[in-house]
Amino acid sequence: MSGTCCQDTLHCVLDYETPKTLVIPSLRVGCVFRFTQLLVVLYVLVYVCVIQRAYQDTDSVLSTVTTKVKGFSLTNVSNQEPQVWDAADYIIPPQGDESFFVLTNMIVTPDQIQSRCAEPPSPSTVCVDDCDCIEGLNDPRRNGVQTGLCVNFSETVQTCQVFSCPALLAAAENFTVLIKNSVIYPKFKFHRSCEFNRKTDPDCPIFKLKHIVSEAGEDFQEMAVKGGIMGILIDWSCDLDWWWADKCFPKYSFRRLDNKNPTNNVAPGYNFRFAKYYKSPEGEESRTLTKAYGIRFDIIVFGTAGKFGIVPTIVNLGAALSFLSLVPMVADWFLLTCTRKRDYYSRQKVSYLKEDAEAESISMATYGTN
Amino acid sequence: MSGTCCQDTLHCVLDYETPKTLVIPSLRVGCVFRFTQLLVVLYVLVYVCVIQRAYQDTDSVLSTVTTKVKGFSLTNVSNQEPQVWDAADYIIPPQGDESFFVLTNMIVTPDQIQSRCAEPPSPSTVCVDDCDCIEGLNDPRRNGVQTGLCVNFSETVQTCQVFSCPALLAAAENFTVLIKNSVIYPKFKFHRSCEFNRKTDPDCPIFKLKHIVSEAGEDFQEMAVKGGIMGILIDWSCDLDWWWADKCFPKYSFRRLDNKNPTNNVAPGYNFRFAKYYKSPEGEESRTLTKAYGIRFDIIVFGTAGKFGIVPTIVNLGAALSFLSLVPMVADWFLLTCTRKRDYYSRQKVSYLKEDAEAESISMATYGTN
Amino acid sequence: MSGTCCQDTLHCVLDYETPKTLVIPSLRVGCVFRFTQLLVVLYVLVYVCVIQRAYQDTDSVLSTVTTKVKGFSLTNVSNQEPQVWDAADYIIPPQGDESFFVLTNMIVTPDQIQSRCAEPPSPSTVCVDDCDCIEGLNDPRRNGVQTGLCVNFSETVQTCQVFSCPALLAAAENFTVLIKNSVIYPKFKFHRSCEFNRKTDPDCPIFKLKHIVSEAGEDFQEMAVKGGIMGILIDWSCDLDWWWADKCFPKYSFRRLDNKNPTNNVAPGYNFRFAKYYKSPEGEESRTLTKAYGIRFDIIVFGTAGKFGIVPTIVNLGAALSFLSLVPMVADWFLLTCTRKRDYYSRQKVSYLKEDAEAESISMATYGTN
Repeated sequence: MSGTCCQDTLHCVLDYETPKTLVIPSLRVGCVFRFTQLLVVLYVLVYVCVIQRAYQDTDSVLSTVTTKVKGFSLTNVSNQEPQVWDAADYIIPPQGDESFFVLTNMIVTPDQIQSRCAEPPSPSTVCVDDCDCIEGLNDPRRNGVQTGLCVNFSETVQTCQVFSCPALLAAAENFTVLIKNSVIYPKFKFHRSCEFNRKTDPDCPIFKLKHIVSEAGEDFQEMAVKGGIMGILIDWSCDLDWWWADKCFPKYSFRRLDNKNPTNNVAPGYNFRFAKYYKSPEGEESRTLTKAYGIRFDIIVFGTAGKFGIVPTIVNLGAALSFLSLVPMVADWFLLTCTRKRDYYSRQKVSYLKEDAEAESISMATYGTN
Repeated sequence: MSGTCCQDTLHCVLDYETPKTLVIPSLRVGCVFRFTQLLVVLYVLVYVCVIQRAYQDTDSVLSTVTTKVKGFSLTNVSNQEPQVWDAADYIIPPQGDESFFVLTNMIVTPDQIQSRCAEPPSPSTVCVDDCDCIEGLNDPRRNGVQTGLCVNFSETVQTCQVFSCPALLAAAENFTVLIKNSVIYPKFKFHRSCEFNRKTDPDCPIFKLKHIVSEAGEDFQEMAVKGGIMGILIDWSCDLDWWWADKCFPKYSFRRLDNKNPTNNVAPGYNFRFAKYYKSPEGEESRTLTKAYGIRFDIIVFGTAGKFGIVPTIVNLGAALSFLSLVPMVADWFLLTCTRKRDYYSRQKVSYLKEDAEAESISMATYGTN
Repeated sequence: MSGTCCQDTLHCVLDYETPKTLVIPSLRVGCVFRFTQLLVVLYVLVYVCVIQRAYQDTDSVLSTVTTKVKGFSLTNVSNQEPQVWDAADYIIPPQGDESFFVLTNMIVTPDQIQSRCAEPPSPSTVCVDDCDCIEGLNDPRRNGVQTGLCVNFSETVQTCQVFSCPALLAAAENFTVLIKNSVIYPKFKFHRSCEFNRKTDPDCPIFKLKHIVSEAGEDFQEMAVKGGIMGILIDWSCDLDWWWADKCFPKYSFRRLDNKNPTNNVAPGYNFRFAKYYKSPEGEESRTLTKAYGIRFDIIVFGTAGKFGIVPTIVNLGAALSFLSLVPMVADWFLLTCTRKRDYYSRQKVSYLKEDAEAESISMATYGTN
């Protein structure tokens, strides 16, 4: 008895149950079947594998950025002596990391006293007497609110006097920035540095600020007056499979990130106030407040690296197989509805069981030999 | 011969092999089958598509943040003259990016000399003689370690003298911060700015610092004394499909990020020391060291955008189809075990092949006509 | 008529169509079938579930970092008086966030006058007369470009004079840094802080700068001269399922991020210039320019948290099921090509439909009873 039971279990586990099949030698049905199969296989090969690279495991980039801005500029505000500005003065804070601010325009109020000065001469600012200067006039491209007085700019020229003399660093557009960029894909233990070298690293250039701004479709001199935020987007998307690994390069793009023409007037452009603190010999502290306008450059490094992974491959192949298993349904539907001999095929393929219980005994007799 | 070979290959490739099937007109089995199918389809439609939006390709947000804090505060430490503080003084560093520090409390040691001063009068600090002041007493909510002396705060009031006079910016809770926020989803070439506008951008408000702190369940005045770190979390999760694209809004939440009640005493709160450097007319350098307590606000922008993608759709449909292909197994199991006529169905559906080799010839005779 | 139509539709929807199957009691085929099934199931259980945890939904980490550096150092440049440096002086900017800079070496040019000084004595710098000093010699490990003069370093020793006297903070290697680290996984509403505590948080240690640099395989004193960038990578990968939640710990690793031996000479190491501004009693502004060399420590927090998710589970199970549905194809192929009785099996399993249309009537006769 136990032996029989054991044998039954063995049969139950190891007997192989396979569907009975019918081979239909119809060229049309066969073509439909193979063509549908081909479509699915092509989708998998072309779209999933080649275009989307869905067989890859992915990882997001980690990065560090160092920047170094170089260049000099001169300001010549009428009531102050000419001043040379270098990176230590116009990069605030002086350290270059992934966000650096270049001072392009400022209004300085030393010892908190609002100053007045003659505007630099230009067709719209030269004047003969006070009538040429309108008190309160405020032209955003010029130097400030006019006081209504016409004063000597130099010994030969008179210009309108304005409040709060701004000092524009006009040469800032020719400053250059060196971007050193180091990326890590921790999942794939991949590390790469990008640093300018004319020969070996032409993909890591030294940029001129003017070019960055103009690539984004903006005008540097216009932006310099009220300030703004420029995004330097570095796309480090990499395919780390096979021989591609050595062709993992950064792609640069530039974009203005602040709202150029805001619908409201809440803080357009980009500016902030900072103070320099001084102490008189008597120990009294004073400060010079600077309203700094300038362009903040935000370096945004992003990207995804892909490398062959078993799990995504299995998942995508599995999905494709599921669709392949739909193909016989399409072919069956075609077989049973669109072919000339559909009734014949249907009878051969499909058996209808009789509903009534008596059929059981009859069927048993008929199928007894099987 | 070659013709036959060619024809054989053609037959092999294009003959369509389809399983023979049996139609069972049982209402109960049919219901089980359709119901199970329905369950799988519902899961796909409701859970995968509507709730999880698994048909979407996703991308992580890139963002830049600009912040601008406004407000004034007054400090009135007894041994110094009253001082007005504006953003240039209490925002360190003065630039507003995604992490800004608001100075709320400080201990200043000019020229590295530890100062002593009378505490502002309050019920616990007013004194009549030195006996009311306990040397070494250190109350964290008050101004410092008591020296044990009772000194004149003003002409009419005497208070206990303390070391290292802190200056609390009590009005800091009323400062406001404007957050300008620009997000990019590079994969979908989506860009959006968020800037306060009462009419068009009510979702990008100007926050009062006090509200930020109280939303996180903290007390500003308490936090102001020892400092701390507040997280302003901006969730930019977006559904970029169809008409949703225009409804991609930030969701704000606030959370205290430092450990409020640390089990150890290593640097509770948030503070750092900075120095202002002065030079005497003789060229000697001195510095004023400030221990700055304050709240660092970290703006953390996160989010995932989803948009219809073919690969995730195929993968999820494929998985659902796999489960649909399980449904016949469930129905078969029901058919062959739970129905009254299971033996009859079983005999009709399943043929058992005889093990012995002699069966071969018999079968051949029986099936010869096929 | 309508009743019949309705009944037909009901039959069409609820009749259950199931494939006719053939049970083959062959031990070898059964074994092949079960073994292949086992392989697929094992892959799913072991690789997908245990190793890759592909059933998990994932989320990327958000983090904030606070750092606090402690330690003192002394500089003793021959032409200046000895100076003590504390964190407020050598941490620039003074606030500790996820990127902090430790000043290790500097060249100070007060009032923009390039200074000259005697080098600290060492076998290579001690001299007897000017002949021992080569004008223009520039040794990167020493203090600057030699002027060609031999001058008194102290009353007893003479050393070569150099331009632009650097001041090396040799003790910087013993500075310690406390890293406070707070991570959020927004999708899973998980929040954890990491702060040093000898007993409860041994995983959040206080690091000595020297150890950080030496763990990355670098020499601190060598790096201190020209500066560099060190990455402190904190991996917060967590498994938030079940009891693992309480074992979510940071893993630290250290890596030099800048190019140590650049092929070109564009800005090796890490340095920047900053200015301190002074005002004379007469109101004239002067500045002291410092070229600061040092090590920037970038704390990079990354990681992915995983937690059981229905969609990834379904997708992976679905893919596995797709592969399970391939198993019968493998077994059929084995059955029809590799078994001794393959012809017999083939005849039993597969029926070939006759091509000619006349077969229809014959077949009908034969199959009429079905």
